[in-house]
Amino acid sequence: MTSTDFQAWTAAGQSRIEAFLQKVLPSPDIAPQRLHAAMRYAVLGAGKRVRPLLAYAAGELSQADPERVTVAGAAVEIIHAYSLVHDDLPCMDDDVLRRGKPTCHVEFDEATALLVGDALQSLSFQLLGEYTLAPDAKGQLEMVKLLGLASGSRGMAGGQAIDLAAVGKTLNVPELEFMHIHKTGALIRAAAVLGARCGAGLSEAEFASVDAYAKAVGLAFQVVDDVLDAEAPTATLGKTAGKDAEQGKPTYVSAMGIAQAKSLAGQLREEALAAITPFGARSARLAQLADFIVLRKF
Amino acid sequence: MTSTDFQAWTAAGQSRIEAFLQKVLPSPDIAPQRLHAAMRYAVLGAGKRVRPLLAYAAGELSQADPERVTVAGAAVEIIHAYSLVHDDLPCMDDDVLRRGKPTCHVEFDEATALLVGDALQSLSFQLLGEYTLAPDAKGQLEMVKLLGLASGSRGMAGGQAIDLAAVGKTLNVPELEFMHIHKTGALIRAAAVLGARCGAGLSEAEFASVDAYAKAVGLAFQVVDDVLDAEAPTATLGKTAGKDAEQGKPTYVSAMGIAQAKSLAGQLREEALAAITPFGARSARLAQLADFIVLRKF
Repeated sequence: MTSTDFQAWTAAGQSRIEAFLQKVLPSPDIAPQRLHAAMRYAVLGAGKRVRPLLAYAAGELSQADPERVTVAGAAVEIIHAYSLVHDDLPCMDDDVLRRGKPTCHVEFDEATALLVGDALQSLSFQLLGEYTLAPDAKGQLEMVKLLGLASGSRGMAGGQAIDLAAVGKTLNVPELEFMHIHKTGALIRAAAVLGARCGAGLSEAEFASVDAYAKAVGLAFQVVDDVLDAEAPTATLGKTAGKDAEQGKPTYVSAMGIAQAKSLAGQLREEALAAITPFGARSARLAQLADFIVLRKF
Repeated sequence: MTSTDFQAWTAAGQSRIEAFLQKVLPSPDIAPQRLHAAMRYAVLGAGKRVRPLLAYAAGELSQADPERVTVAGAAVEIIHAYSLVHDDLPCMDDDVLRRGKPTCHVEFDEATALLVGDALQSLSFQLLGEYTLAPDAKGQLEMVKLLGLASGSRGMAGGQAIDLAAVGKTLNVPELEFMHIHKTGALIRAAAVLGARCGAGLSEAEFASVDAYAKAVGLAFQVVDDVLDAEAPTATLGKTAGKDAEQGKPTYVSAMGIAQAKSLAGQLREEALAAITPFGARSARLAQLADFIVLRKF
């Protein structure tokens, strides 16, 4: 497969997700209009849609219907979008720039941004109940449970709490890993596993391989983020650069330096690829995605 | 049925819900400890558990297994608890007292309170995916969808947005009703309908009757709340009394006066009772609950 082919696949997935998000986010003409406008502002027209792309790629392992994977990927992306809105609030990271635009509470107001996040989370689960996604309804309830766990206090929200508690502290690499496995890792793993669960025929051991791949990719994603945050100018990044260091947040760069952080990202890429080797050719997209995530903008 | 019998039934339901919430809320010994402690603080040991009681009572219409209804009722109660935590935040109602205790952001901090709400919502949906609740998995997915809709922008979160937009404005009674049907009504209706859906054999028309009952009860609940807020001292109420009027929030009392608001509550009680008449004796608990809600502390 060529790089052009991967770019076309990525673009097709991104536009399928965008169209679905456009459809399921309530129109700003429906009351409460301001809330609906703010929800659309927070979700649409921005973001690389990495999580849905992971879902599509993992869906290829189980020959999942892409229309079903679109719903699962969108549900995960909506959770991700809500987390960014809440993460940017003054009582959290207090950030004013996100994806090259004013953050939701800056463009609207704090109370609206709070409700945007709350309502987006509800919408995500509503979609998992509303659309047919899995080969059987019982398997789909398992997806509801998985996304609940991945989003909650032992997943993403818990990671934010660990992150908050770490401000101003020095974390060693295992502590950093513990934080990121929760904060970003849980949702990335959910994206891949939910995508694979939209199709049929995989064993629990194979779901575990998908999960191991996504765990490594998720950590690599964070390591790369820390490197980019330390190196890239704000304009390229689309968010305030150097903010982590400025806020005294521990990063892989502060824990091990840029060169070692880059080397760790490479190791994690190898781990991710090793986890999906048993799937053979069906895992080609997952392999390309690992490269896409690790090699971006280095 | 005697009043003593109803009190015993209520107490049994409350203690069953409390025990289940105790079990499913992560222990404060599990990381992130502070978040888990705050989640338990926000949910446990307080509240009349009106929504779970509605679920139990509606479950009697379909001979639902009370253990299943406990899960559905707890899921709704957890959503309710998260909404109170977020509603009390400085960017929303900025309240310091709730159920007789300092609000979550006062006892902990704002960032933690934000994450408490987020993680509680995730937990609620996780439970709906994790436990067997409905006669079949497809019916259970319908429950996931219903709770998502009831919690989201066209339900509870939307009601909060409408409420915010109404501060300082004069609303007429239909406008007030539109706000409350979203803000508190949607979740109360979900509680009753989810409870009924834990059992088998009801038709869609019968679910609609349960919903009509709960819609009237939900509005009555709000009217009574407004009356209590205007009349009761803070100590009895367990939250800051007179706060609504002070913040310029429109209430049924400000729209129509206390006497008329009380009379409206009585009418809504009649509507609720009329909706469940077709169920005969099976609806005895729902009828008692309507009285319990409307006649409390008048």
